[in-house]
Amino acid sequence: MNELRAQAQQLDKQDTLSHKKEAFDLPKGLIYLDGNSLGPLTHAAKKRAVDVVNEQWGNSLIASWNSHKWIELPMIIGNKIAPLIGATANTVVCCDSISVNLFKLLSAALMAQKSAYSDSQKSATAKSLPKRAVILSQNDNFPTDLYMAQGLSMLLGEQECNLLSVDSDAIESTLLERGQEIAVLMLTHVNFRNGDIHDMQRLTKLAHAQGVLVLWDLAHSAGVLPIDLQACDVDYAVGCTYKYLNGGPGAPAFAYVAPKHITTLQQPLSGWMGHKQPFAFAHDYESSETVERLLAGTPSIISMSILDAALDVFEDINMTELRDKSIALNAYFGECVAALVTEEDFVLACKPNAQHRGSQISYQHPHAYAICQALIDRQVVADFRAPNILRLGFSPLFLSFENVFEAASILQQVMQERSYMQAKYSVKQAVT
Amino acid sequence: MNELRAQAQQLDKQDTLSHKKEAFDLPKGLIYLDGNSLGPLTHAAKKRAVDVVNEQWGNSLIASWNSHKWIELPMIIGNKIAPLIGATANTVVCCDSISVNLFKLLSAALMAQKSAYSDSQKSATAKSLPKRAVILSQNDNFPTDLYMAQGLSMLLGEQECNLLSVDSDAIESTLLERGQEIAVLMLTHVNFRNGDIHDMQRLTKLAHAQGVLVLWDLAHSAGVLPIDLQACDVDYAVGCTYKYLNGGPGAPAFAYVAPKHITTLQQPLSGWMGHKQPFAFAHDYESSETVERLLAGTPSIISMSILDAALDVFEDINMTELRDKSIALNAYFGECVAALVTEEDFVLACKPNAQHRGSQISYQHPHAYAICQALIDRQVVADFRAPNILRLGFSPLFLSFENVFEAASILQQVMQERSYMQAKYSVKQAVT
Repeated sequence: MNELRAQAQQLDKQDTLSHKKEAFDLPKGLIYLDGNSLGPLTHAAKKRAVDVVNEQWGNSLIASWNSHKWIELPMIIGNKIAPLIGATANTVVCCDSISVNLFKLLSAALMAQKSAYSDSQKSATAKSLPKRAVILSQNDNFPTDLYMAQGLSMLLGEQECNLLSVDSDAIESTLLERGQEIAVLMLTHVNFRNGDIHDMQRLTKLAHAQGVLVLWDLAHSAGVLPIDLQACDVDYAVGCTYKYLNGGPGAPAFAYVAPKHITTLQQPLSGWMGHKQPFAFAHDYESSETVERLLAGTPSIISMSILDAALDVFEDINMTELRDKSIALNAYFGECVAALVTEEDFVLACKPNAQHRGSQISYQHPHAYAICQALIDRQVVADFRAPNILRLGFSPLFLSFENVFEAASILQQVMQERSYMQAKYSVKQAVT
Repeated sequence: MNELRAQAQQLDKQDTLSHKKEAFDLPKGLIYLDGNSLGPLTHAAKKRAVDVVNEQWGNSLIASWNSHKWIELPMIIGNKIAPLIGATANTVVCCDSISVNLFKLLSAALMAQKSAYSDSQKSATAKSLPKRAVILSQNDNFPTDLYMAQGLSMLLGEQECNLLSVDSDAIESTLLERGQEIAVLMLTHVNFRNGDIHDMQRLTKLAHAQGVLVLWDLAHSAGVLPIDLQACDVDYAVGCTYKYLNGGPGAPAFAYVAPKHITTLQQPLSGWMGHKQPFAFAHDYESSETVERLLAGTPSIISMSILDAALDVFEDINMTELRDKSIALNAYFGECVAALVTEEDFVLACKPNAQHRGSQISYQHPHAYAICQALIDRQVVADFRAPNILRLGFSPLFLSFENVFEAASILQQVMQERSYMQAKYSVKQAVT
């Protein structure tokens, strides 16, 4: 045990990102292994909150739409996120939630395929294209992704839109066997339960070879994994800003459209903010020609402004360096737990090699919920995911190796003392 | 002029709502006649902003979903708004933007009509119902309302969804003549440009007589006009929280569903927050049986929490009393301007009787934009609406009659001195 701690201290000494912790306003004594669910407050975000509320809203009022660039926030933020996900300038916009953005982009993909099909039918010379109505996804995708596809299918009818979800290991074979029916492949880059990472480049290429468009959900990878949307030739992407990007609870999401699709993209949530000239108050919708065409209604400025400030912590970050630390933390925690927690029913529920996982580790245990509560009571914030998963996330910007060692040794105590069997830890609450 | 000021002072003495001004944190010396575009900061909202950011997010982090009731905010806020719009408990939910909520409810109305039609076709005994695919609206509805209908039509195809917009005075005749084609009537209660008020009860009844569902947009009436959705038997409504409800820039909108429709409502933006058990992470969407089925993705908690605090100013408000003051302010301003501003090209652009308008007054002038800028420079915040409308709003919770008199006399100066002709006032900015 002392050896493990010494190892942690050694790793902390070599950590080139350790100074980033100073940007965060974390409660003293707390070991926060849940930055993959809700990123913590930064000093910059805290300062901006006061500024946007008291000064911008309170004093400048309506003038702030111009003077404090509220109207530009969706693009300002998009352009801050772009370099973190390998997107070129003006291809990312911040708006709405992941769910709503998925609906826009799934609709866009279906309409693009429908239009290509219909053009091929009209042309005497072009090769006739297949009619594609299937959204291919994965059974254990994050539920909202599946639900939004199901909602779109309900609205359009199964003839026009049909969700096909398969197990992870059947995605490639389904693409190969049923590629001609599939309009769009919708996958989450890093799985929320077990941290499995999809090979974005390989799957995107495979899908494209079948004429399938590709939409990636970056909820559990943006801000912690190197992503190269441009190099992978990804068509569309969505992502979350309140996990590794630390934007604040429920901060607006982002959406990406490949440059080649931007000028032709059509999406049905065509609110006034996506109009070419919102303040002309014209009768007919005429879409912006930029990625702003994804905007719908008036954005939540306060949430968005705080997110804008929170993103500044990434200004000088090298994503490969960040990923290296993430893997090291993740692997080191796994080693500590393997050495310290010997209970047989406490089982790793993810790939054993940290390089093959997102910035998280999962264990299963029949009392996972109560273990999670007992940890929280001891100042180690982890997460429970139904039915029996204890999930721990490693945000490399504010965690040290010693933090991670402490967390593992507190987990050891909880397990050895069976603290989680106390009645108070078993009462489930709505959200955990 | 002195007589007008004396009259203002007299009216202020009789004002039973004058104490409400203390709840607001308005900049000194500013006369804010734009609460109908962006309501100002209240002390309660300012305090909550610090609390939700520093304490709830900063210190309690993920636990706040339960401990600070983040998960319940959409319903807590909905239930605060309900009494202001004549809705019963648990029929209003706060989420997303007006635009996005319009899409949900227009889709819901179309699907309900389609399902009724299809049931009637299947039944041997039931009377065959008409196939309804038209959304009837008004040409000068707020553009986003029309745009969302246009987006839905693009997605579904004109056979399934078709926007028909007519002039205000043709709504009734269109309902009578083409009622059998119309699925849903979508109108804004108070017109954003001229403040015209629709007769909600009459139009809803007329539409229902034709089998048409009715969706009201309360953007310019919620929080300032008495509304009785229940008594008017309205099917669906949406509304804005950052105008008269003072929720903060871009604060999330609200949506209402009549009790009789709640259990059968289907909407396509079926995100995880609208699931019966979001944290079961089930594969298939199963809708909540409450109005929470309108929820899609994770809400912007910070914006929503601030709105929650801002709504407390309405706790003891009688909407009839509020409307009386609104009319009195509005009428009094009109009288002042009629007496003080004699330029012939400055023309009233709305109904002359304040009882027939929302809490706003509009004038047209070729230099409306520059006049608006000149007023702002003199601490009177008004609004410009393209192409030539000067719009002034009267939020009865924080304006006094003397404020309104001052504003009118400053307008008089600007017009007499032709201050608006200065070059600096004619440069248009993106948003005004």
